[in-house]
Amino acid sequence: MKLSQHQISSFNDDLLKDHAKAFAYTAEKVSDIQYVLQRLQEFQVAIPSWALGTGGTRFGRFSGGGEPRNLEEKIEDVGLLHTLNRASGAISLHIPWDIPENAPSIKALAAQHGLRFDAVNSNTFQDQPGQKHSYKFGSLHHTDKAVRKQAIEHNIEVIKYGIELGSDALSLWLSDGSNFPGQLNFRHAFQRTLESLQEIYAALPDQWKLYIEYKCSEPNFYSTTIADWGQSLMLANKLGSKALTLVDLGHHLPNANIEQIVALLLMEGKLAGFHFNDSKYGDDDLTVGSINPYQLFLIFNELVEGMDARSMNHASDLGWMIDASHNVKDPLEDLLQSVEAIMIAYAQALLVDTKALEAARQSNDVVTAQDILQEAYRTDVRPLIAQARLLNGGALQPVQLYRSLKVRDQLVKERGAKTVATGL
Amino acid sequence: MKLSQHQISSFNDDLLKDHAKAFAYTAEKVSDIQYVLQRLQEFQVAIPSWALGTGGTRFGRFSGGGEPRNLEEKIEDVGLLHTLNRASGAISLHIPWDIPENAPSIKALAAQHGLRFDAVNSNTFQDQPGQKHSYKFGSLHHTDKAVRKQAIEHNIEVIKYGIELGSDALSLWLSDGSNFPGQLNFRHAFQRTLESLQEIYAALPDQWKLYIEYKCSEPNFYSTTIADWGQSLMLANKLGSKALTLVDLGHHLPNANIEQIVALLLMEGKLAGFHFNDSKYGDDDLTVGSINPYQLFLIFNELVEGMDARSMNHASDLGWMIDASHNVKDPLEDLLQSVEAIMIAYAQALLVDTKALEAARQSNDVVTAQDILQEAYRTDVRPLIAQARLLNGGALQPVQLYRSLKVRDQLVKERGAKTVATGL
Amino acid sequence: MKLSQHQISSFNDDLLKDHAKAFAYTAEKVSDIQYVLQRLQEFQVAIPSWALGTGGTRFGRFSGGGEPRNLEEKIEDVGLLHTLNRASGAISLHIPWDIPENAPSIKALAAQHGLRFDAVNSNTFQDQPGQKHSYKFGSLHHTDKAVRKQAIEHNIEVIKYGIELGSDALSLWLSDGSNFPGQLNFRHAFQRTLESLQEIYAALPDQWKLYIEYKCSEPNFYSTTIADWGQSLMLANKLGSKALTLVDLGHHLPNANIEQIVALLLMEGKLAGFHFNDSKYGDDDLTVGSINPYQLFLIFNELVEGMDARSMNHASDLGWMIDASHNVKDPLEDLLQSVEAIMIAYAQALLVDTKALEAARQSNDVVTAQDILQEAYRTDVRPLIAQARLLNGGALQPVQLYRSLKVRDQLVKERGAKTVATGL
Amino acid sequence: MKLSQHQISSFNDDLLKDHAKAFAYTAEKVSDIQYVLQRLQEFQVAIPSWALGTGGTRFGRFSGGGEPRNLEEKIEDVGLLHTLNRASGAISLHIPWDIPENAPSIKALAAQHGLRFDAVNSNTFQDQPGQKHSYKFGSLHHTDKAVRKQAIEHNIEVIKYGIELGSDALSLWLSDGSNFPGQLNFRHAFQRTLESLQEIYAALPDQWKLYIEYKCSEPNFYSTTIADWGQSLMLANKLGSKALTLVDLGHHLPNANIEQIVALLLMEGKLAGFHFNDSKYGDDDLTVGSINPYQLFLIFNELVEGMDARSMNHASDLGWMIDASHNVKDPLEDLLQSVEAIMIAYAQALLVDTKALEAARQSNDVVTAQDILQEAYRTDVRPLIAQARLLNGGALQPVQLYRSLKVRDQLVKERGAKTVATGL
Repeated sequence: MKLSQHQISSFNDDLLKDHAKAFAYTAEKVSDIQYVLQRLQEFQVAIPSWALGTGGTRFGRFSGGGEPRNLEEKIEDVGLLHTLNRASGAISLHIPWDIPENAPSIKALAAQHGLRFDAVNSNTFQDQPGQKHSYKFGSLHHTDKAVRKQAIEHNIEVIKYGIELGSDALSLWLSDGSNFPGQLNFRHAFQRTLESLQEIYAALPDQWKLYIEYKCSEPNFYSTTIADWGQSLMLANKLGSKALTLVDLGHHLPNANIEQIVALLLMEGKLAGFHFNDSKYGDDDLTVGSINPYQLFLIFNELVEGMDARSMNHASDLGWMIDASHNVKDPLEDLLQSVEAIMIAYAQALLVDTKALEAARQSNDVVTAQDILQEAYRTDVRPLIAQARLLNGGALQPVQLYRSLKVRDQLVKERGAKTVATGL
Repeated sequence: MKLSQHQISSFNDDLLKDHAKAFAYTAEKVSDIQYVLQRLQEFQVAIPSWALGTGGTRFGRFSGGGEPRNLEEKIEDVGLLHTLNRASGAISLHIPWDIPENAPSIKALAAQHGLRFDAVNSNTFQDQPGQKHSYKFGSLHHTDKAVRKQAIEHNIEVIKYGIELGSDALSLWLSDGSNFPGQLNFRHAFQRTLESLQEIYAALPDQWKLYIEYKCSEPNFYSTTIADWGQSLMLANKLGSKALTLVDLGHHLPNANIEQIVALLLMEGKLAGFHFNDSKYGDDDLTVGSINPYQLFLIFNELVEGMDARSMNHASDLGWMIDASHNVKDPLEDLLQSVEAIMIAYAQALLVDTKALEAARQSNDVVTAQDILQEAYRTDVRPLIAQARLLNGGALQPVQLYRSLKVRDQLVKERGAKTVATGL
Repeated sequence: MKLSQHQISSFNDDLLKDHAKAFAYTAEKVSDIQYVLQRLQEFQVAIPSWALGTGGTRFGRFSGGGEPRNLEEKIEDVGLLHTLNRASGAISLHIPWDIPENAPSIKALAAQHGLRFDAVNSNTFQDQPGQKHSYKFGSLHHTDKAVRKQAIEHNIEVIKYGIELGSDALSLWLSDGSNFPGQLNFRHAFQRTLESLQEIYAALPDQWKLYIEYKCSEPNFYSTTIADWGQSLMLANKLGSKALTLVDLGHHLPNANIEQIVALLLMEGKLAGFHFNDSKYGDDDLTVGSINPYQLFLIFNELVEGMDARSMNHASDLGWMIDASHNVKDPLEDLLQSVEAIMIAYAQALLVDTKALEAARQSNDVVTAQDILQEAYRTDVRPLIAQARLLNGGALQPVQLYRSLKVRDQLVKERGAKTVATGL
Repeated sequence: MKLSQHQISSFNDDLLKDHAKAFAYTAEKVSDIQYVLQRLQEFQVAIPSWALGTGGTRFGRFSGGGEPRNLEEKIEDVGLLHTLNRASGAISLHIPWDIPENAPSIKALAAQHGLRFDAVNSNTFQDQPGQKHSYKFGSLHHTDKAVRKQAIEHNIEVIKYGIELGSDALSLWLSDGSNFPGQLNFRHAFQRTLESLQEIYAALPDQWKLYIEYKCSEPNFYSTTIADWGQSLMLANKLGSKALTLVDLGHHLPNANIEQIVALLLMEGKLAGFHFNDSKYGDDDLTVGSINPYQLFLIFNELVEGMDARSMNHASDLGWMIDASHNVKDPLEDLLQSVEAIMIAYAQALLVDTKALEAARQSNDVVTAQDILQEAYRTDVRPLIAQARLLNGGALQPVQLYRSLKVRDQLVKERGAKTVATGL
């Protein structure tokens, strides 16, 4: 199913008057509204192909209806999101869940929807039917060279798919680790991982990047071989300038100060980008901004300040991707909420008076420093986001339009009520 | 496959001399060795039927071979464990994974293996094929009365199966909760849960008990409707004397002092028993004693002291069950390790000089209090466990015998390499 | 130092035009603006007497200047805050830090400032000079009856002071616990605490309440004798209807769902009220709303809905108090920021469309439920707070007025640069 | 007070027979008992000068009696410990708490007690009387260059004291950080810290080392400027080969896998050594091994294996120090318990069959890998420790001898009941 620009316009029409008023009120308080709007219009968040179906837990999965049955339908779904919010103009594929059998046609389809291909993701945390060696005890860190070789080759194959589609980064998350004390020689596991990564790194085209994700636990429950940002950074440093550290918001120990980690990785020129989500207990993969939106704002505050300090392009110099699991929500609605939460945090960060903030910091005026951040955070920036969307040709209220058009019902009709998208 | 008493004896023969020496050395330091041995001989830990296959995570499951294909084979597996360690003389079934189609024959089979049926477990955290209503949004707390009714009836059915098999407790874990702020009215969810439980409670036979498990998160990631011991106890108190709180070691927030919770529940006469496992990050369901054996000892220290204070029978007045998931170990070996770790903690607790401990506490002699506990904990009690096993007719070293007999190979031969037991 | 109404008016004058515009814009979207404003005007947060000086940690304390040197000056400080924000019309005393030697004169002074006396707090976590027995090993739970008696009598004395001042609640936080496994018999410690509390409870006047605070750790590092809401509630239930559970936001294990606890305590009629603060790692006692403002909103959402369900008066039927420590901020500025954050969360909660929320919950429309909460949370309610303050005669921007009047400089001049207020 | 060798011998005499039996039984199972005993005899744990008095929390401090009143008495106390256990042959001083006014005489005194001076510690987390600039907002990371300079000079002064005493390392823990979002520019704070450290580093003599401690929180509650091992390692790498990362067991986020961090730092040649203690909630600074002795063993398991892999000398190639706070125990007894716990963990680690372990790892035999570790851990190694102590001339049971000689009573008599040692 596809939305027409007309459907969007007529939906917006009814809301325009109220929106114009809200935007005028809000814009008046923004010192450089054109700058802010341009940034918001440019900013795009990639949608992972595996997030288009209902997610599950080890206890079960309650699939919804109308889930995409193949890569083409996944691209359609992302196209639909992008049509609604004009901020989801990229898709991140996962191999082998989304092997593009006919790359040119897939590329053309994506182009029709205005989508580009973001980082490609490999999978060595599950065994595929017919696979020679099992990843039960890990992949790139495995004690058996043959297993490592298989995992390396898989990653190189993923790069090839990425090249065909015009992607320029390999995003790598390893589930490698151990469940019990004694199971693993940490040092050897690290060294083997490094050697495997070196082979993959060698296969990267020029201009490509290698994103190295870290995670403190799960699915291994005693240790993970790339457990924190320090371990990822060590690997990235040993590999070379193309290797960078990817931050997934849900992959930290309780109470971690993620914004500080982000600031330091940026300082080192080693931040790859993000897997956005939110969580309360572990790697819960909840809708972005649903649990702790202030933390998200603080992270964006570091990003804006830190990228500006390095004259980086906000929209294109880091990788922005959602990585969430929608167990009890319509995946498309969840993704719309997630992108909205990201845009809000970004807009708030753009409103921070950084000059005044640095002055307050310089004089240790903690009260004022907090006030400056909260002044931006407490501002209702939704009219700014909506305006950027409007200027981009999107809907003023994407979820409402999605609902009023009964998109899910349509998808169920087209694809069936019992479809289960590939993914977790 | 079945082990003969002869196989065990001949295995033990080679080890007897060393064992006798170790036992003599250890027993000498125990003030009432007969008492300790009797307790150890009586103590039995129930094996859950779902723990006999390889477990998995939301990211995948790497099944081993020779997993039991039906309830009969599960009983065989537990029988095998019990033959080896003489401390696993009970099985805890899970409905609908283990529906006993012919109860008398199942009962007879269990009896042949010297097994009794421990608490029966219901399942309203997954949808079964053909099920009318979905549990996607919960079961006993569901906003829709029809769903609650279905879940209540399922629990009543589970009680019926339990009656047929001679069980005397229903163990209830709800996955009910919410993934996002706003999703749930906490108060209404609690009240609906209470009302549902009242209907189930009303269906309990005399002498039966209702075990109410709590869990701080997962599979719901924002709230769980029975989240902690306080919420479980509130329900148990409102229900009546048959309702008790079950403690699963992995179901607590980080750093929780579980031993204190155990002591207070015992004090209130409201402790049902345990689901034993170990964990480092979340509900990792690892082998008992593999991560923090001192905590396990501290819990048993409270149990021994608290049960003695109420003149309870250690072996029979609480429910003892393992609840673990064996992702990278042979499930039977894992269970042998778990039972051994439980017996060790129990034996250490039996060695605590409680009189001296109370005296030290009375005078706030913290150094001595710690020393008394660590004196017991640092003692190598393995010869005592082995002796109890020997007296019960078990193997001195169960895992070693299991391996030397190549039991797993046999099971694979009998059952196939690709079997997947029902469970998670 | 005292602010005149004239100073406030002339400060407001310059801001009135902008405020009027912002208020009009915001109020337009509120369905019953009069109701909201009245609630906000009535709502008062008590200031604890110990929060008027610079706080410290075990590593040191960096006092600021102009700290109050006695109870009179503490009342002056709170009076100043209340003059500024008209939302701090109560003070919570701590004995023996603030013994009112001449109660009638103290009462008169408070009345001049428009302040009432909130709950009085006892202190059995420190030894006072000349004290007969030490609290090194606890107070109400102590193994030595003489120590318990001393602590009980202290609490009864605190009640007497409270009666003289017109307070109507005793707020009790025990530091009792243990630092090492073995140190304490948990059961006996609980029973001794209960017995001690029964004696204190017996000394409560009619209409008085006993607030029982819980805390998961610190200053005892292995166990605390009232560790969580469940233990506090057990005590409150055993004591009687005057005994209630007090929630301090910083006293929970990592990741605890505090809003659910609040909802259930309200449901049971056993919620006493709050000690507001914020924290990232432990009981950090930071400015309210400085770390996780969304959590604060979620708590207020439960409060508004839960109190309305019981027809409770928002302003007077629970105890509202700040409990923070200002290590690097001017305490008065910090308290103004804290009260503002509380008012914001309360106002946002008042904006929640509870009817629509219940409808979304009823149909498990999780996306809409989240949207309803976030609609209220994302609204910039500061103009509503400012309007309520204006109507009450306070300053539109309290911190700015405080700064422009150079209040701290004045206080330093009056009281000296090296004063150290009693407290932590 | 000083213990004579005769007092020790006569105390040991009564215990010798039982000990000999226990040692024989235990030694028999050790493959190379001479090797193990030699390692145990050589291993020495430094006692920090600040740990000889009763510690406190922000809520209070309950001093015991007989605390050392000056550096000489602190040395005496450590001498006493070393006489008892022959494993505490070093002292770690803290400036300005322990300024050696007359270095040669202090050195001579230490030599008399058989003590050497371990790493010296600086203090820029408190303001000293007469200090020009305050550390309220940090030291080496301070925005004000003058404050940084003062802190740098203090550290250089500490090095000078260290040189005079024969120490060869500066151990540096910064409390620098922030309490509130916005307070700090993380990047600038890191850069300023690095520059300050470079100046200190430049002042290090040849052969000296700089230990850089990290800590996730406290006394700053939002961020700490050297928050985790990754940040410490980044600094150490940028500084040079003399700079190393110090691990304090209590300075990690909940659930951190410390043993893995240790293994990787060792691999990188960047591990400085340890501050030993134990904790349950935060940086609780409890007696080593009192909460989670298995974790301590796992850390030593990495140390033994990792140091052997680099042919390092266990006793001298890393810094071993206790850093604990004794709030409710006699500090000297607590330190004896701590050293004992360290020796036990070390001995257990020496017993691990590393060859078999590597073989099990190679074949992913997780059950066996765990068994190998637990075989060593479950062994009662206390007779080995006692034997090493005996061979070194120490007491078979140090705490018992300390008590039977009523050492604390003596110290109270000598020094008074109200003395308060410098420290926290």
